[in-house]
Order: sequence, then C-alpha cells, then structure tokens
Amino acid sequence: MDISSLGEFGFIDRITDGISCTRGDTIKGVGDDAAVIDKDSDSYALISSDMFLEGIAFDLTYTPLKHLGFKCVVAAASDILAMNGTAEQITFSIGLSQKVTMEMADELYEGVRAACEKYSIDLVGGDTTPSMTGLAISVTAIGSVVKDQITYRNGAKNADLLCVTGDLGAAFMGLKLLEREKRVLNGNIEAAPKFDGYEYLLERQLHPLLRCDVIEALDKSGIVPTSMIDISDGLASEVLHLCRRSGVGARLYLNKIPISSKCFEFGDEINVDPVMAALNGGDDYELLFTVPVGRYEDVLRVGGIDVIGHVTAPEKGAALVTPDGGEITLTAQGWPAQE
Amino acid sequence: MDISSLGEFGFIDRITDGISCTRGDTIKGVGDDAAVIDKDSDSYALISSDMFLEGIAFDLTYTPLKHLGFKCVVAAASDILAMNGTAEQITFSIGLSQKVTMEMADELYEGVRAACEKYSIDLVGGDTTPSMTGLAISVTAIGSVVKDQITYRNGAKNADLLCVTGDLGAAFMGLKLLEREKRVLNGNIEAAPKFDGYEYLLERQLHPLLRCDVIEALDKSGIVPTSMIDISDGLASEVLHLCRRSGVGARLYLNKIPISSKCFEFGDEINVDPVMAALNGGDDYELLFTVPVGRYEDVLRVGGIDVIGHVTAPEKGAALVTPDGGEITLTAQGWPAQE
Repeated sequence: MDISSLGEFGFIDRITDGISCTRGDTIKGVGDDAAVIDKDSDSYALISSDMFLEGIAFDLTYTPLKHLGFKCVVAAASDILAMNGTAEQITFSIGLSQKVTMEMADELYEGVRAACEKYSIDLVGGDTTPSMTGLAISVTAIGSVVKDQITYRNGAKNADLLCVTGDLGAAFMGLKLLEREKRVLNGNIEAAPKFDGYEYLLERQLHPLLRCDVIEALDKSGIVPTSMIDISDGLASEVLHLCRRSGVGARLYLNKIPISSKCFEFGDEINVDPVMAALNGGDDYELLFTVPVGRYEDVLRVGGIDVIGHVTAPEKGAALVTPDGGEITLTAQGWPAQE
Repeated sequence: MDISSLGEFGFIDRITDGISCTRGDTIKGVGDDAAVIDKDSDSYALISSDMFLEGIAFDLTYTPLKHLGFKCVVAAASDILAMNGTAEQITFSIGLSQKVTMEMADELYEGVRAACEKYSIDLVGGDTTPSMTGLAISVTAIGSVVKDQITYRNGAKNADLLCVTGDLGAAFMGLKLLEREKRVLNGNIEAAPKFDGYEYLLERQLHPLLRCDVIEALDKSGIVPTSMIDISDGLASEVLHLCRRSGVGARLYLNKIPISSKCFEFGDEINVDPVMAALNGGDDYELLFTVPVGRYEDVLRVGGIDVIGHVTAPEKGAALVTPDGGEITLTAQGWPAQE
C-alpha cells in the first residue's frame, strides 16, 4: 500500500495504533505536541522530536544555513511551549552530505547556538553521520512544566474561546516569494526578483521566533489554557487536532484570523488567497489555544493574542465562518504536500 | 574545507568547541554517551540521540526491516546503559522515501515495538516526514540513573581493570557475510552464498541485544564501574575515548579480547583478521568499562564479562599488547568508513 494514499495523519494513526505505554512514569505518550514523563513532585519532563530533510523541509538553494539551524531549534522547542512548558535542552543530530563543507556546517551550528542562546536552551548532544543523499537534521527538545499548568490538546470545552498568537500565513507567503526567486535564478521566468518591501514575509519563513514571551505572559496573567497546540502545519489542521483530541467542534471566524497586510499585498501579486495561506500554509510556529469564555478580557489584555472563534459541541463539527455568515467545513492538510 | 578530512571525531570537536551549558539543571552536555539532566533528589535523567541513514547505517538490500527497527532502538538505548542507567522511553522519527510501502513501515515498527516490549521501554513520540531520497531514522532514548551510580567516560583511574561484555567483532563479520551475499545476488561473484553455520554472525549484525542484563548484574553485585562507554564503533575507538576523557593510558591484551570461534572461522574464509574486526568493526553494542583492580574477582563472578587489560598513567598512551609482548599503538576509526 502506498503510504501517500493514507496521508500523514492516516499514517501516524496506523503506526501508533495499539501502542500502549506500560511504564508508570510515562504520563502521556504519542498524540500530543510532546510526550510527558514524570519528573519530580512538582513538574513533568516534556520531550518532542522533529526531523527536517533536505528537499522536503528546506531547500538549500535559498535557505541560509544559519537561519536553518535557528529554525530547526525553534520548530522543536515550539512543541514544548505548546504543552505550556519551558524548553530547556536540545539534542541536534545531523546527516552530512558530501556537498556540505566545514564552513557550511559551522554556519548551520552558528544558527543552532544563536537560538539556544536567545532562548536559554542548552545544546546537550546529538549524533553525526555521513549522508549518501541530502542534509538530514533531527532535533529533540526537552523541557518541563509545572504539573498543574500542563496543557494538552484534549482539554477544550464547549464555549471556550479559540485564541492565536501573532499573525498567520506570512511564512507560507515568504516561501512562495523564495520559490519565485529560485525560478528567476534558474532563468525559468523573466521578471526580476522583487524582495523589497516583503522582508517581513522572508523573516517569517526563514527566521521564525519561539513564542516563549506569550507562555510567560499567560503565566503572569494567571491564565492556564484549557488546550493548546503549536501552529506548524497551518491553522486548519491544528484546529482539527484540538477538536479531535478534545471531542469538540469549533467555529472559526474568517475575518478574525490575524493576517499581515504584507500577506494580502503579496497574495494579490501572485494570486494566492492569504486566508488559505493562514489555514493551510504552515511554518508559522505560533500558538493556538483555548481559554474559558470568562477569560476574554484577560486574554486580550495580555497583548499579541487574537480571539478567532469558539469551541462548540462536537456534533457541530469544525467550520470556518465567512463574513456573510456562511460556513465552510475545515479540512486538514499534511504531507504529501498540498502542491 | 572537506569535512571528511577532519574525520568524525575532528568534526565533533569542531562543532562542539565552545559550547557551554548555562542551565543549572544540565549536569553534563556533549562529550559522553548521554546527556545528563537533573531529575529529582535521587536521580538524573539521561538523553541520547542517534541517526541512521540508508546507505550508511543500513542497506535495505539485506536488512530485514523488523530487525532494523529493533536494532535502532537497541543502539540508542545502549547509550543510556553506558551511563549505568536504565532506558525508559524513546522517540522514533522517520523520513519515508517513496519506495517504502505501508507494509514495509509496519514491519519496521513491528521491530521497534518488539524491542520496546522486550526491554520495557515506552515509545512516546517521534516525527514522520516524506524523504526525497532514502529511509532516514532518528531515535532519542531517555532514561534515568541513581545519582551516586552514574558512570561517565571520565572516571577511569590508573591501574583500573578494563572489562568488556560479550564478544566482539562478530557483528562486523556478519556485515561482511551480508555484503558477500549481496555481491552474489548482483552476480558480481560466482560462489553461491553460504550462510550455513554463520547464523551467529548474522544475528550479531542484524539483531544486537541490549546489555541491560549486565547493568542489572553489576548493580546486584554492588559494582559501580569507574568509567563506561558502549562499543558501537569498535573496541579501539572506545578505549581511546575512555583514555582521552579520563586522562589516562591503557594496555589492552590481544589474546584477552573475547572473539567467537565463528569470527575466526569466517575471518579465515574471507581473509579478514578477527582481531581487527573486534578493534575497528563496530556495531557490537557491548559495554566497555573499568573497575578498581580490587574488584577483579567480583567482576569475573558476575559472568559474561572479560577483563582485557588495565588502565595506565597517561604518558604511556593506549596500546594493544601482542602475545609476544610487543605493543601496537591504538588508533581510532570513525567515519568516513574504513573502506
């Protein structure tokens, strides 16, 4: 059977079906942003692994290696934040193709170290191996969370508010911009590459930031989300994950989704709908979470957070509400890539 | 600069140079079999990551996928044992090339689960991604160790005994046997493949076991090694790691190295020195450790352990002592592969 016919989530369901954790100290295995392991009387340890392969997760034609190293750390650590935790250590493993020189490896590790330094994460290990093919990277992030503040995907309750940090879709538009540039470089299209004015889109694609500022701000405001997930595969997919794990439905208001003006501007230019970029684009590394409706004003007071919808009873399903009041059922993307 | 000119250990030295851990709970970062993180008042958490790429770590022509899954878990968990710890959880990440069918993935995960079940390890997470090229696997093993029983690479003292578990070199001979079989299949050599009688060599290459039995037996005997490392890259390389980290020398007696009779038999057939297979072959996943000389009889009483030499002052360097009393300076292998 062809795995791509199952899709990413079908594949994950199949390989994790029947897996049961038997150790008493394994609090939560597969199925959330990070695994949860008992640590001490007050806190849990959190573990999450990500794999990044050349030609799939990144294209070395237009990805500066320093940015790549930084981004891999952010992507892995973001899963720890999505449990309402703090990222503390990483292991960074690398498969080196022959075309990677020592100078290139230095640049990559410079990005890894920069991210570790910025977010107070220790690089504590990893593996190195030659690669017969492309550059391969695997990062495991380790962290911890206070036991009564841990946030799973499965705690969303009917009427909770759906909240997101930052803005969405810009990373996807940045990717489109880089791909256009690559076609220009390859001589496949004639127009000169135009980056001017779109630096924000490039920044979001190449240099995403870790939203520990939001986790800290929520903590200071005494807000523990009822459920949370990081937005790595696009908003639609993440909303569906929360709904599925929590056994709820959701209504997402199209005109409430935070999208930067640059996304609209570039979307117009290349004829890509910025809302679709936000829903299905991925690589945002923002956080999607739910809070009880009574915390509406508290959440807005935190800053940098938008309330984009609410949780419903499960039978209502998950849908996007358009400005005219119409409803579009949400569908998930995943690999194989959407185009 | 070409990375292969630095070699594996030169590359690791370069990328880890200047890395410092700043978190108070990071007890030990890079430089040992596993990273050590403070857990609770009695124990440390241990973390180690390994990457396995098609064409480098395994050849799908002759590696049954179930065995591959099992072996990847053993290889990663073995690093936890080498700290005198217990492997408790793993994350298993996979990059799937298009030629991997669902049935193949099922077989691979069957091996992962079999290893987890056999060694009471929980599979708690991982990542899945398509791969443009070969099959890519990354495993992170998590475990713990009682604080006063942790064993680093750096604790070997002058006059300590050098001990190894099991026998060495058979996994390398098993690889040679499989490679010969592959050449037969490809029609490159004429002789019919001959596996009969060499099942042990194949077993050692394709289905290595985790030596938790030894860690448990040492614990029961009240023996805490002064230093330890797992034998994944060949005995010579591991002895040199212990010497370097402990700031000592070593004498290794050639005729004390445990090598199975099948290794000699097949070595004769293909003209490969079994001692070289033990020193430089790799993939044994046995343990090399040191104990104070006063524990000589205690160690032998544990069973399945050979004393193969002793630790010396650093100025004596690390050498292999031949039966005629000659000394051969030990040199390390690593990637690029030795042939």
